[in-house]
Amino acid sequence: MIGRFILVIIFGLSPRVLRAQDSDSVSIRNIANQVLADSRAYENLRELCKKIGPRLSGSANAAKAVEWGRRMMLEAGADTVYLQPCMVTHWQRGGKETGFVLQGASRHKLNLCALGNSVGTGTKGISASVIEVRSFEELQQLGREVITGKIVFFNHPMRKDFINTFEAYGEAAKYRVWGPSQAAKYGAVGSIVRSMAINIDPYPHTGVLVYNDSFPKIPAVAISTEDAEWLSNALRKKMVTSVSFTTNCRMLKDVQSYNVVGEIRGNSIPREIITVGGHLDSWDLAEGAQDDGAGCVQSIEVLRTLKKLGIKPERTIRAVLFMNEENGGGGGRAYKDSAIARNENHIFALESDEGGFSPRGFGIQRPGYDKIKTWAPLFYPYGVYMINEDGGGSDIAPLAKLGTVLAGLEPDTQRYFELHHASTDVFEAVSKRELDLGIVNMTALIWLVSKYGIN
Amino acid sequence: MIGRFILVIIFGLSPRVLRAQDSDSVSIRNIANQVLADSRAYENLRELCKKIGPRLSGSANAAKAVEWGRRMMLEAGADTVYLQPCMVTHWQRGGKETGFVLQGASRHKLNLCALGNSVGTGTKGISASVIEVRSFEELQQLGREVITGKIVFFNHPMRKDFINTFEAYGEAAKYRVWGPSQAAKYGAVGSIVRSMAINIDPYPHTGVLVYNDSFPKIPAVAISTEDAEWLSNALRKKMVTSVSFTTNCRMLKDVQSYNVVGEIRGNSIPREIITVGGHLDSWDLAEGAQDDGAGCVQSIEVLRTLKKLGIKPERTIRAVLFMNEENGGGGGRAYKDSAIARNENHIFALESDEGGFSPRGFGIQRPGYDKIKTWAPLFYPYGVYMINEDGGGSDIAPLAKLGTVLAGLEPDTQRYFELHHASTDVFEAVSKRELDLGIVNMTALIWLVSKYGIN
Repeated sequence: MIGRFILVIIFGLSPRVLRAQDSDSVSIRNIANQVLADSRAYENLRELCKKIGPRLSGSANAAKAVEWGRRMMLEAGADTVYLQPCMVTHWQRGGKETGFVLQGASRHKLNLCALGNSVGTGTKGISASVIEVRSFEELQQLGREVITGKIVFFNHPMRKDFINTFEAYGEAAKYRVWGPSQAAKYGAVGSIVRSMAINIDPYPHTGVLVYNDSFPKIPAVAISTEDAEWLSNALRKKMVTSVSFTTNCRMLKDVQSYNVVGEIRGNSIPREIITVGGHLDSWDLAEGAQDDGAGCVQSIEVLRTLKKLGIKPERTIRAVLFMNEENGGGGGRAYKDSAIARNENHIFALESDEGGFSPRGFGIQRPGYDKIKTWAPLFYPYGVYMINEDGGGSDIAPLAKLGTVLAGLEPDTQRYFELHHASTDVFEAVSKRELDLGIVNMTALIWLVSKYGIN
Repeated sequence: MIGRFILVIIFGLSPRVLRAQDSDSVSIRNIANQVLADSRAYENLRELCKKIGPRLSGSANAAKAVEWGRRMMLEAGADTVYLQPCMVTHWQRGGKETGFVLQGASRHKLNLCALGNSVGTGTKGISASVIEVRSFEELQQLGREVITGKIVFFNHPMRKDFINTFEAYGEAAKYRVWGPSQAAKYGAVGSIVRSMAINIDPYPHTGVLVYNDSFPKIPAVAISTEDAEWLSNALRKKMVTSVSFTTNCRMLKDVQSYNVVGEIRGNSIPREIITVGGHLDSWDLAEGAQDDGAGCVQSIEVLRTLKKLGIKPERTIRAVLFMNEENGGGGGRAYKDSAIARNENHIFALESDEGGFSPRGFGIQRPGYDKIKTWAPLFYPYGVYMINEDGGGSDIAPLAKLGTVLAGLEPDTQRYFELHHASTDVFEAVSKRELDLGIVNMTALIWLVSKYGIN
């Protein structure tokens, strides 16, 4: 990977580009100084996490978060702030879930949680014998005869050997997302998935499932990696009589909520719109600090930084706090629908939804990749050394239809799955310096696109 | 910086080098797989931090840590394990320090701690009016007339605009190290330094001072950055009557302690020695997890990884846990003295003492830099993209006399000064994945040097 990346930088730069970059590097140094000395992102995040906390779509806390977001955008100095209506999923966990493994007469308690959008078990819960599988292939081989009436336990560990942990997530999360319906296809009555965490720890990590309407909707939970190891071991030793769990969750009708939008109008080319955003909703188990309060406060801070420095961007810049990323995507779709309805020209969108960790790169989709890769040396002093040809984010993905160049901030990934969708995703897991360094690079990129465009 | 670095990589590699690197990249992939799947470093660190904890040189805990280290080296499979005697500083904090600001009749409590190697105040403590300075120049301008009889408050914030926080530390720590004697030079009776932390938080950060024998030894403390801001503000408003503090520390005679050494004997060139190490002692306020339990367990794991993979290195590899890095350097000197006495040939030494955070680079001193920079593409897939021409560490620095090439692991620096020398440096501040990724790169570098030498 380094070879291609480096060749592109060296041979992609004409002397004229290099001279322009001298002056741009001074501007970016000013951006960095402003952010590192004066960013409010960390304190804003503290307020979001500690005064509001978990904010699943459709909840009272999500509504509070919308009001928080509007106030933050105004305090950041946005020219225009508005709430953009969107219909969002309304799933409720209900009371706390319980579960245990029966071993003859003794019980082993399981640390578990219902998966997002799952049906509940009813108050009686479900009890059945459990069968462990490592893959969909194994499930298929076992077939209806073995699976019928059982609880399927998808025990597919995230791969430790992938250096980028999102690759490991991409490889394993299908068992959480599609596993329950695949199990139901063969007659299972419930589904247990090993939490999407690389470390062995006691925390269940939730996350969305997607039911396939062709099969019965069965209740689904995640258990901690610690319990997954324990259960697998107990099954190997034939020491499991049955597994029981009770979940109280239910899906209600979609409700209206809002994206929060703050805008700085472009000075010379206002009709070209640049979006920078994160998502405001979080899972109900967590403060949603890294996922994705971080992306929200970073996006707000991009606006505040430009305003503080008196920069009047050539193109329009919008910070957007999207609603309902976690379990429906209603906010991202509404943003795209509005863009189409208003015939807006969205040239570029950057999402920060991989945590507020120390930045290492940007992922940029073509054709924007070709231009932005020539800017790579400008980011290098601030820790961003990779410009990868991919990237984006769930909320901005619908804009692809409009031909928008999509991009994503790529922070260091090592700690993300210690806390993703779990109770460990709290404000204390965020480092102010790491968060701010992300803002430096995001603001620099947004400013460069606002100055030079993306074509 | 990127320009030079990139040009060096591109134009420094001949086709022959590139072919050799194909096979080396496979070996390093194996090293990475072994470490990421099976490293014990994190659990070893847990034991060091939670079962032993703080381990200042000369303390009973430091002796326990030596025994822990010996056991760890044996468990790692070292061919030879021994304790290397060294004389170390024996400074004791005594009971907890107290301090307050008097404002007329009311008191504001200060979060403070004695600086390492400071004299104590005696049980009555000291009370005096306080004068704030931002620099040695300011101190000199004020001069004896103003300073005599007062407590000097060095309030020099670490610079936020340096991206590498160690640069900010380098710029500010002189007020902790040399400040007390500089204040005494002008007649001060006590010294207060703003903690070496970038964030505003309530924790005092200790660290060593060095007295100048030409001036009286006055008691010195660090106050938290939060209190430094408060005190500076109160002084500006003329709301400070006096400051008092009591410290109970004292310097005793040097005592004997040990470096812990574990060795794998070289297969074909055993007389060429490669050292990889960290320091075993820590400040008494902290578990010393990042500083530098991390470097210790990483160095031990380098040995274990090679053994596990059945690699017989061409040259001798030694993992060394140095004693007394924090307040004396006795371990590093003893290691060098022994090397000279035994006429050992130390070709290369790598220290990990900047925390077990996600790795970003190596600093390598010339002449080794020229060779190792050609290996840069081998590290890139594991997060190390910078080969900088500098580096080393306090413990291995004495080896410079022997012509040894010195090197240091350079992890991400953003979080280090949240916890450096403070009670926040605990096991929980370490991420297993980040720690292990450092080991991957350290093992790869040590293995490459053992294979190819350094000339």
